[in-house]
Amino acid sequence: MALPVSPLAPKTYATPPAIAGVRFATAEAGIRYKGRTDVLLAVFDEGTAVAGVLTRSLCPSAAIDWCRQNLSGGTARALVVNSGNANAFTGLKGIEAVSLTAELAARAVGCATSEVFLASTGVIGEPLDARKFDGVLDALTQKLSAEPWMEPAKAIMTTDTFAKLSEATLEIDGVTINIAGIAKGSGMIAPDMATMLSFVFTDAPIAAPVLQALLTKHNATSFNAITVDSDTSTSDTLLAFATGKAAIDPIASLDDPRAEIFGEALSDVLFDMAMQVVRDGEGATKFVTVNVSGATSDESAAKIARSIADSPLVKTAIAGEDANWGRIVMAVGKAGQPADRDKLTIAFGDHVLARNGQRAAEYSEDAATAYMKGEELSVSVDIGLGAGHATVYTCDLTHGYIDINGNYRS
Amino acid sequence: MALPVSPLAPKTYATPPAIAGVRFATAEAGIRYKGRTDVLLAVFDEGTAVAGVLTRSLCPSAAIDWCRQNLSGGTARALVVNSGNANAFTGLKGIEAVSLTAELAARAVGCATSEVFLASTGVIGEPLDARKFDGVLDALTQKLSAEPWMEPAKAIMTTDTFAKLSEATLEIDGVTINIAGIAKGSGMIAPDMATMLSFVFTDAPIAAPVLQALLTKHNATSFNAITVDSDTSTSDTLLAFATGKAAIDPIASLDDPRAEIFGEALSDVLFDMAMQVVRDGEGATKFVTVNVSGATSDESAAKIARSIADSPLVKTAIAGEDANWGRIVMAVGKAGQPADRDKLTIAFGDHVLARNGQRAAEYSEDAATAYMKGEELSVSVDIGLGAGHATVYTCDLTHGYIDINGNYRS
Repeated sequence: MALPVSPLAPKTYATPPAIAGVRFATAEAGIRYKGRTDVLLAVFDEGTAVAGVLTRSLCPSAAIDWCRQNLSGGTARALVVNSGNANAFTGLKGIEAVSLTAELAARAVGCATSEVFLASTGVIGEPLDARKFDGVLDALTQKLSAEPWMEPAKAIMTTDTFAKLSEATLEIDGVTINIAGIAKGSGMIAPDMATMLSFVFTDAPIAAPVLQALLTKHNATSFNAITVDSDTSTSDTLLAFATGKAAIDPIASLDDPRAEIFGEALSDVLFDMAMQVVRDGEGATKFVTVNVSGATSDESAAKIARSIADSPLVKTAIAGEDANWGRIVMAVGKAGQPADRDKLTIAFGDHVLARNGQRAAEYSEDAATAYMKGEELSVSVDIGLGAGHATVYTCDLTHGYIDINGNYRS
Repeated sequence: MALPVSPLAPKTYATPPAIAGVRFATAEAGIRYKGRTDVLLAVFDEGTAVAGVLTRSLCPSAAIDWCRQNLSGGTARALVVNSGNANAFTGLKGIEAVSLTAELAARAVGCATSEVFLASTGVIGEPLDARKFDGVLDALTQKLSAEPWMEPAKAIMTTDTFAKLSEATLEIDGVTINIAGIAKGSGMIAPDMATMLSFVFTDAPIAAPVLQALLTKHNATSFNAITVDSDTSTSDTLLAFATGKAAIDPIASLDDPRAEIFGEALSDVLFDMAMQVVRDGEGATKFVTVNVSGATSDESAAKIARSIADSPLVKTAIAGEDANWGRIVMAVGKAGQPADRDKLTIAFGDHVLARNGQRAAEYSEDAATAYMKGEELSVSVDIGLGAGHATVYTCDLTHGYIDINGNYRS
């Protein structure tokens, strides 16, 4: 676990403000780690709306099933997150552990189990002994506070090398609205699919269906636009909680123009956290933006961008600081999307390497190689067929990735 | 290029027999490599039938386009293969290089350009100067021989660490039929998509459409069932040439029971060569067979098997000799195919690790870990839903892969 902090880590941490109606506490429940917090309890005042985006894995964890069921209710009173054990692929025992945890939380907080949301992250296949939460959750309700957000951000980490926090402040009807967010994970690549988790909290009064629509929309261009190694977690969870404490009229419809204003601030927070997850990609030394334009549709562009961002050959070339645009051509070709070799334009940063299916006249190996030595790189491909475009964010593939994933469990 | 020979290399080389009607020669054309052969000319007697399977990349090389066009004719008189330059993504210059090469070969051999087949492998994006073949091909026609097959197998290598050859002998109507095959590449992962190439030669008298049908069928369970790193080449090529010199009645239809007999021998050769390509997977230290059964269809099983075999997390766990079945669950879950977590059975070799969605009662970490130290491993997953099954062959993902692909071009 003593991994060095990612060279791509942000230089400073965000310090989100307290969110009225949200209090939390953390504890050492001794689930797997020693000498650090591994359980988070967040408690919400009555009237808190909830929305969520969950993994599309067909082998989801028990907690995912639980959240999916409770999201239909639209209200939340408690969130329990543990690190060290993902409670995934644990069969009937996993379902029992989830039920017991929810019951313990409901009793401690004084709410219905249908208002309790759960997330677990860590090793999978190991039964989670939820009895460890007995007493712990009660004790946590005695020491709830609204700050600092660093505590919950740290309690949910597994092999993360830095805590991930974000915040946004906006004004609606002359009232300040706050958004706070925490996240953990190195994208889909957290060891043992320990999960990508992110939680967002706001005091905005916003109806659950509106919050859900905004969350789904902006998740598409933030968390769903990142990839570290193409491996989708069994437990990916993004939950948003809106306490409604801010003194403005409730936002009850997407047609309310304030929904758009709130959505943009929410989008900023999600995007910020998603970028932090990429920056903590296992073994990452380069942050890479892949832009695809000129595809036949946005969806087609996204598939091509992901094919590039997921390619081991592209990622190792970037790690080797090699402006190997041939591998970009390969990744476009294998994406299975409409493309015409002889219309492709490929650039690394501002350096156009290929145009119309062959090496560009202005191509300079020296200039491109110098560019590749940077820590933040962009790869741009124009397909030349239409107006579809997409951006995907990723990192390189290095010896660090092999070290972490070849040794983690043992 | 001075890579150590793969630890998974076969202990002995096959020594295919001469194939009546096939002669070849190799030369040093100085395309990229120094001090080794880099061009192969194979010449076929009149009446040679040809069939082929080519990359499905939408950004194929110029040679792929050329072969695709000529395959419709069904007859071949010459094959020219060069290593060191893939002539891929070279635009109009690439098309001109292909035309010039075919013209030079047709003139040297005395045939139509429509009977010339071409393949190129090596760096991509670099224009190929086909004038280097002028004179060389003429000279090669003066030193054609029918053996040994090691020479053409070596001339087409790029970063391969061993030459790949295979053979089969069968008897039809009391007559001995011979099949010889050569291949190069480390699967789809040859640096710069230098390509997977394979060529098969037989003296069987078999009509081109029948040869094509058999080649397509058996390619599905050999070359199309391997993956090293999920990156599909721009130039993958499998061509089969049948000279018809064996003294039996021609096999003119798939209904002829002899087609099935020949097809099985062909299948053996294709499978043998495909396994050799996996065994030369870049950086590979483990050979892995992934079996999926109980899927809703064979196609669904193949997608799940490939999701497992392509997963960086699965491949690094295998490199680390970690019986990390949680990552197998993850890969099943992300495949997007029908699956029910609570019906999965997972085994490494004979060791059942999980059954019905949770750790198996008989699971022994020690026994599983001991198994993982072997060089030949199998991963078996039963989905528990239907009768669909598939097998995919792959290797592990190691530091060697990062070394080779982070440094190759420069």
